[in-house]
Amino acid sequence: MLSNSRSLRIEWGDCDPAGIIFYPRYFAMFDHSTSMLIEAASGVTKPELFKKYDFAGYPVVTTQGKFITPTRFGDDVEIHSAFTRVGRSSFEIRHQVIKAGMIAAEGLETRAWVKRDPDDKSKIRSHPIPEDLAARFRGES
Amino acid sequence: MLSNSRSLRIEWGDCDPAGIIFYPRYFAMFDHSTSMLIEAASGVTKPELFKKYDFAGYPVVTTQGKFITPTRFGDDVEIHSAFTRVGRSSFEIRHQVIKAGMIAAEGLETRAWVKRDPDDKSKIRSHPIPEDLAARFRGES
Amino acid sequence: MLSNSRSLRIEWGDCDPAGIIFYPRYFAMFDHSTSMLIEAASGVTKPELFKKYDFAGYPVVTTQGKFITPTRFGDDVEIHSAFTRVGRSSFEIRHQVIKAGMIAAEGLETRAWVKRDPDDKSKIRSHPIPEDLAARFRGES
Amino acid sequence: MLSNSRSLRIEWGDCDPAGIIFYPRYFAMFDHSTSMLIEAASGVTKPELFKKYDFAGYPVVTTQGKFITPTRFGDDVEIHSAFTRVGRSSFEIRHQVIKAGMIAAEGLETRAWVKRDPDDKSKIRSHPIPEDLAARFRGES
Repeated sequence: MLSNSRSLRIEWGDCDPAGIIFYPRYFAMFDHSTSMLIEAASGVTKPELFKKYDFAGYPVVTTQGKFITPTRFGDDVEIHSAFTRVGRSSFEIRHQVIKAGMIAAEGLETRAWVKRDPDDKSKIRSHPIPEDLAARFRGES
Repeated sequence: MLSNSRSLRIEWGDCDPAGIIFYPRYFAMFDHSTSMLIEAASGVTKPELFKKYDFAGYPVVTTQGKFITPTRFGDDVEIHSAFTRVGRSSFEIRHQVIKAGMIAAEGLETRAWVKRDPDDKSKIRSHPIPEDLAARFRGES
Repeated sequence: MLSNSRSLRIEWGDCDPAGIIFYPRYFAMFDHSTSMLIEAASGVTKPELFKKYDFAGYPVVTTQGKFITPTRFGDDVEIHSAFTRVGRSSFEIRHQVIKAGMIAAEGLETRAWVKRDPDDKSKIRSHPIPEDLAARFRGES
Repeated sequence: MLSNSRSLRIEWGDCDPAGIIFYPRYFAMFDHSTSMLIEAASGVTKPELFKKYDFAGYPVVTTQGKFITPTRFGDDVEIHSAFTRVGRSSFEIRHQVIKAGMIAAEGLETRAWVKRDPDDKSKIRSHPIPEDLAARFRGES
């Protein structure tokens, strides 16, 4: 399965009055990590992906977070992201926030590959992941 | 000129490790206050406004913020918003954050009324504000 | 078990280029809903709670989110929050986002009641929830 | 005067339903750019700065933003930040967001160097910037 890592600094504005990260900020970081993982798979940025494939996004259906050790402003962390399941029209990604060699936080998300409903453009429906892309998610090509 | 007020609570997640509001959050509050002021003018919510008028938004062109007294999580404040200038294709709004009867912060923003460029849909261009709406912004009807 | 509801408007700035809520914003909303639920239990705001009880916060240990129907800017929703478990030094809260009578999203969070570690003030340790407060969380008083 | 640049990607979650950056996000970026500029001046991260100098922060007093060309998710930008004035107890920083060689947005902020009020620890007061640090802000050492 494909994986990707990125480094980032926990910012002052990511943190709450307790001086530690305000946990919803982790999900914003995980969301971008997913985009970067899919960019690593596809070779194109998210706006280019929308042009390349006829689809409407990959919204999160369920997510789980586990916060083990707090991170603080000024902390340099790595986010390691990997596909853990690639289904027909959905996939699962696990994100790990690594601080000083230890897992500080973990996220697990299930996302659906969606298209606009042809009968009602305001609605979205799950749709098979393009096969070439699914193969790359699985690390097969 | 039309004005509008709304009450809100400064949240834990709005605040930084100093225990005071992280000032970019004020601009997010001001942005929603502008939407609420325009809703007061038009009688419809922002998505309905897009349906009613053929336009692409009212992006901020310039903004100024002045932070006089810090607000803290748990503080109940009022945001008082008023049009201060309504031009042909742009308008100015002043926001005041009132805490315990005093102005704690102030924002001044200039926004443009824009449409998609017919020659290049990825671009936007300023466009005259619909006259019925401009009249309401000015408090004339 | 104690429960509490609050109404809110999904804002333009809560939404992403797909026009639907950027899901990390739900967790920010859930965090404030938890504070409001605890305020309903204790009768005091969060800063007053810190003064009343000698503790360092109630950080999230694990959380789950389930996003059933997207919400969009302009949507008026209710967030219904309820304690689902009150333990010795941790508790569980379930948040439901109700849109037009239907559950649009759901969050489940486990939080720990913590104090500063007396041996190392930079660290926090879980600590028994004050008994009068735990009773109110359970809806017993 | 000291200056510093950093590169960043405009993220999906930074953008609004118009597909362009939600402008309060710029101020969050500027805030971190200021921290990075001060880190470049001092050689230490923000938490270490608090340990090194006896002070309570450098809150924004006034800010101005000018949004010239919208940035979109997937855009790679540079933020160039420079001191433009270093006073006795306040300083001014200008941030420029560079996209494809052009200034897409600009921010100008005045910040105060503050300490806790010895008579009332809940209050802050402006205080002279430590001279060694002010000299580095000015690019003199």
